[in-house]
Amino acid sequence: MQQQISIITLGVNDMAVSRGFYVEGFGWSPVFENDEIIFYQMNGFVLGTFHKPALEQDMGRKRLSAPGAFSLAHNVPAREDVDIVMGQLIQAGGRLIRKADAPPHGGFRGYVADPDDHAWEIAWNPAWTIDERGLITFGV
Amino acid sequence: MQQQISIITLGVNDMAVSRGFYVEGFGWSPVFENDEIIFYQMNGFVLGTFHKPALEQDMGRKRLSAPGAFSLAHNVPAREDVDIVMGQLIQAGGRLIRKADAPPHGGFRGYVADPDDHAWEIAWNPAWTIDERGLITFGV
Repeated sequence: MQQQISIITLGVNDMAVSRGFYVEGFGWSPVFENDEIIFYQMNGFVLGTFHKPALEQDMGRKRLSAPGAFSLAHNVPAREDVDIVMGQLIQAGGRLIRKADAPPHGGFRGYVADPDDHAWEIAWNPAWTIDERGLITFGV
Repeated sequence: MQQQISIITLGVNDMAVSRGFYVEGFGWSPVFENDEIIFYQMNGFVLGTFHKPALEQDMGRKRLSAPGAFSLAHNVPAREDVDIVMGQLIQAGGRLIRKADAPPHGGFRGYVADPDDHAWEIAWNPAWTIDERGLITFGV
């Protein structure tokens, strides 16, 4: 089986508020949108923001909670980009979870919650490569 | 800013049980592992399974809950693969959330929870392309 994930779907309470965070904060462009779902073409997969009741109906279960036990990371090319990106995200409706600092394993990172309390780690990790298409390769 | 996600990190209660699900169920190989984190090199990004207390410590917040308001999808090349993959995942410690059927938007999909209650959608969607590297492109 391919070692592959096709979609990350986040449950969202207010589509417009969430859209503002991703479009204004990250500067990303949707590839498709309607009243209950917005898709963003990412680096080899698709990010979806799906109205939470519709996600629950599609999944066939209720009471999905936040903050969930997961995080998403966006790596940046330089240490000084971490605070810049975190600032933009907070400006666009994000909430600071953890101010950026240096973790024991190296690099530099902080956490911001999106308007639906999904955690985003903004990280600089010089051991991992990012190519011009945004494809990430693990490194130590 | 690149339209890019670098890592998806899932909080995990028992590293060995989670590893069994991903290695035996999906057939994926870790690129790195220690006592508290396992990384899998994916299609242009990295999947991490991180011991939940360590994730909470890194994030600087507690009581992350499951099931969170999100899902991950693995798309397969053919309709008949959906039930096959779901069966393998259940065999490897997953739990059925929703039996596969045809959603209103087309294709065929079901949901399985991993051992930590993270939801995986297994989907066949002929409008989306999957290349030989596993890179997914949105389509309608």
